[in-house]
Amino acid sequence: MSNALPRRILVAPSGFKESLDAAAVAQAIGAGVRRALPGAVVKAVPIADGGEGTAETLACATGGRLVPARVTGPVGDPVDSHYAMLGGEATGTAVVEMAAAAGLRLVPRDQRDPGTTTSHGVGELIVAAIDAGAQKVLVGCGDSGTSDGGMGALAALGARILDAAGREVPAGGNHLARVDRIDMASLHPAIAAGTVEITLALNQHNVLTGPRGVARVFGPQKGATPEQVEAMSAGFEHWAAVLRRDSLDSARATDFANAPGTGASGGLGAGLAAVGAVLMPRFEAILDSGLAGIDLDGLLRGADLVITAEGAIDFQTPRGKVPAEVARRASLHGVPVVALAGTLGKGCRDVHDIGIDAIASIVPIPMTLEEAVEDGERLLIEAAERFMRTIILGASMAAARLSPRDAW
Amino acid sequence: MSNALPRRILVAPSGFKESLDAAAVAQAIGAGVRRALPGAVVKAVPIADGGEGTAETLACATGGRLVPARVTGPVGDPVDSHYAMLGGEATGTAVVEMAAAAGLRLVPRDQRDPGTTTSHGVGELIVAAIDAGAQKVLVGCGDSGTSDGGMGALAALGARILDAAGREVPAGGNHLARVDRIDMASLHPAIAAGTVEITLALNQHNVLTGPRGVARVFGPQKGATPEQVEAMSAGFEHWAAVLRRDSLDSARATDFANAPGTGASGGLGAGLAAVGAVLMPRFEAILDSGLAGIDLDGLLRGADLVITAEGAIDFQTPRGKVPAEVARRASLHGVPVVALAGTLGKGCRDVHDIGIDAIASIVPIPMTLEEAVEDGERLLIEAAERFMRTIILGASMAAARLSPRDAW
Repeated sequence: MSNALPRRILVAPSGFKESLDAAAVAQAIGAGVRRALPGAVVKAVPIADGGEGTAETLACATGGRLVPARVTGPVGDPVDSHYAMLGGEATGTAVVEMAAAAGLRLVPRDQRDPGTTTSHGVGELIVAAIDAGAQKVLVGCGDSGTSDGGMGALAALGARILDAAGREVPAGGNHLARVDRIDMASLHPAIAAGTVEITLALNQHNVLTGPRGVARVFGPQKGATPEQVEAMSAGFEHWAAVLRRDSLDSARATDFANAPGTGASGGLGAGLAAVGAVLMPRFEAILDSGLAGIDLDGLLRGADLVITAEGAIDFQTPRGKVPAEVARRASLHGVPVVALAGTLGKGCRDVHDIGIDAIASIVPIPMTLEEAVEDGERLLIEAAERFMRTIILGASMAAARLSPRDAW
Repeated sequence: MSNALPRRILVAPSGFKESLDAAAVAQAIGAGVRRALPGAVVKAVPIADGGEGTAETLACATGGRLVPARVTGPVGDPVDSHYAMLGGEATGTAVVEMAAAAGLRLVPRDQRDPGTTTSHGVGELIVAAIDAGAQKVLVGCGDSGTSDGGMGALAALGARILDAAGREVPAGGNHLARVDRIDMASLHPAIAAGTVEITLALNQHNVLTGPRGVARVFGPQKGATPEQVEAMSAGFEHWAAVLRRDSLDSARATDFANAPGTGASGGLGAGLAAVGAVLMPRFEAILDSGLAGIDLDGLLRGADLVITAEGAIDFQTPRGKVPAEVARRASLHGVPVVALAGTLGKGCRDVHDIGIDAIASIVPIPMTLEEAVEDGERLLIEAAERFMRTIILGASMAAARLSPRDAW
C-alpha cells in the first residue's frame, strides 16, 4: 500500500497577499504535509510572480542584497522603497519591484484614484540601480496602484512628456489624453545608448487597450467610475499612438496598444517598451532565466504530486496566476496538481479545466478576513495536513483494490 | 483506473444545528459527490441522534405523523411542541423529543439559568402520547436546556417531589438539594403498572455525578457560574440518593449517580429511570431498533466509502456524536470514513484516532457564522464536491502506480 502513496511532494505556492510571503506559505504547507505523511520528501519552492516580495525572494535565492531607496510614491509623497542587487551568477542584475514603489498598498484607501497616481518611483528605482552599476534591470510588474501608462516612470528616466504648448504633463491616467509628444533627448544616457538591458516580468494577459484592456479590466478594481474607465481607455488609445511615434526605436513596429503585456501594471509595460524594455512573460523572466535559482522543470520531473497555493483562487486564477503556471508546467510532466487558497471565490471550479485536480480552502470555521490573515500560518499548516490526509485516503483505498462488497 | 475509484458511497450525516436538518445535509452532500463522480451510486441516510428533528425524522421514515401538543416550556411559559406517532411496523410507538419541549433553543439567552429551567414539558409529552394510545415511548435526549435531574418530567408524570415539610418542591437544579422524598402514589397508572415501555435514547457518556458528571461538563455551557456548578453537582449527589430510595422499583440496584446515561439531558436519564425507563445508547435505540428504517450495518457492508458530517467537529465529537458512531460501525466493516463539518473546532484532529480518515470544513472563504448558516446548503454541496475530487485524485494517483521519476 505504501507504494501507492505519493512520496516526493513539490510545494510551489505564491505568497498570500498581506498575510504570508511565498516562502512562508511554502514552509507552512510543507509542515502540514509532513504531519500527514512523515515519510514524504518535501521540496518547497516559493514562486515569485513579479509582485510584492519578488525582489526579496530573488535576492535571497542568489545571495544578493536589498538596497534601500527613498522615491516618490504613487500619490506623490516620498516612500521608503528598495530594489535588489542579485548575487552569485546573477551579479550585475538588479530587480525592481513595481509594488515597492507604486504598489496598490502604498495608495491610501481614500486616495485610490487611478487618474492621478504615478509610477514615477519605479523609474527612480531603475535609475538608482543603473547608477549603482547594474547592467541588467528586471522590473517585476504586479500589485500596481497606478494606471498612468508608465508616464511617471518615463519621466523619472529623463523623458519629457509634453503637451501641445510644450509644457510638461504631470503623470496620471487623467492626463494621458493631452500628451502631445515625448522628448527623449534628456533620457538617462545608459538607457538611451542601450548599454543597460531592461526586462519587464509581467502577465502577458494584460494589454493596454480594447475590451480586455487594462482600463476596463482593472479600472473598477482600482476605484474608477464607469465614466473614468471609458475616459481612461480613450486616453490609453491616444497614449499608445504617441508612444509608437516617439519611442526610442520608432523604426521597430511595436504595437503599444495590443501587444501582450503592454497593459501590465497600469500600462507600465507600454511606457517602458518605448525606451527599449523587453516585455517578457513573468514566469519565463523569473523562473526560466535561472534568476530564482529554481529548476522547476527538473523538480517536476521527479515529483509525485505538486501542491500550489494562492491567497485567492477564483475566475482570475487561470489568467496567468501562479497556480495556473504551475499546473501548466506540471501537466507537461504528467504530475498531478492540487491547490490551497485563503479564499475560494467565484469561478474557482474553473481551475479544474486548467489541470488543477483538487482545491481546498484553509478556512476551518466562520471567521473574519482579519482573523484569517492574522492566523494564516496555523490555518495553512492545518489545512495542508487535512488536504494531504484526504489524498492519502484516496490512495489507500485504491491500493486496497476495493474488495467486492455486498450488493446494494 | 476507474476500478480504483470508490463507486458506492454512503452518506450518513447528522443535522447541522440551526442550519440544515440531517435529511437536507445528506441530500446536499450526495449532490456534491455526484458532481465530482457522476458514476457513483450514492445512498443518503440521515442519522437521527435523539436531538432536534429526531421525532420528525422517525415519523418520516416509518410513515407516521407528528402530533402537536402545547406544553410547559423550560422557563415556565407554554410552548407549541409535538411528538411523533410512528407508522408501519412501529405503530404503537411514540417518539418524544426532549429538545421539542425543554430544548436549549427554547430558553431565551437572557434566561439561560440551569438552576431554574424545567423538564416538565417532556413529561407532559409522554403523558399525551400514552393517553393517545402509545404502548411504547421513545424519548430522544439531546440539545437539552435543563439540568433539573428530570424533576419536572417526573412531576408531570404524576410523581410528587416533596421537601421535609411535605411541600412540593418546584423543578430546577437549584432545588434538588432540598428534596426530601418522592411520592409515587399518584403516578400515571400506565407507568405505575408498567404497561407502557419508556426508553430513553441517550448519549451513554453522560453520567449524573462526579468529575465527568453533567453539572461539571455541561453546566458552564448552559450558563452556570463555577459556584453554581459545584452546588448543582452536590444537588445531583443528593438527588441520586433520593431516586435510589424512592424509585418505583427500589429493589432494583440502579446506580442513579454513575450509570451510563444518567446524566443525559441534564439528568433526565436518572429521573425517568426512577419510573422504570430504560436508558439505551441512542444509536442502539434509534438505528438498531429498526425505528429509523435504516439498516446501517447492511449498507456499510456494501459501501466503498462513508461520508458523515456534523455542524461542528471538535474534541467532543469522539464522545458519542454521530460521526463517531458512524466511524465505529464502519470500522467493523473495514469501510473508510471521512467527515465534513460546518466548523472544525479545537481538537478536531482527535477524530483521526476514532477511525475518521479525513476531515474538511465547508467554509470556502472568511465569512460570518450567520452567512455560513444562511448559505449552508450551497456550501455543503460545493465542499462535498471538493472533498470528493481530492479523494478521487488520491485514488487516481495510486491507480497510476506512480511510475519511477527522476532523482531528486
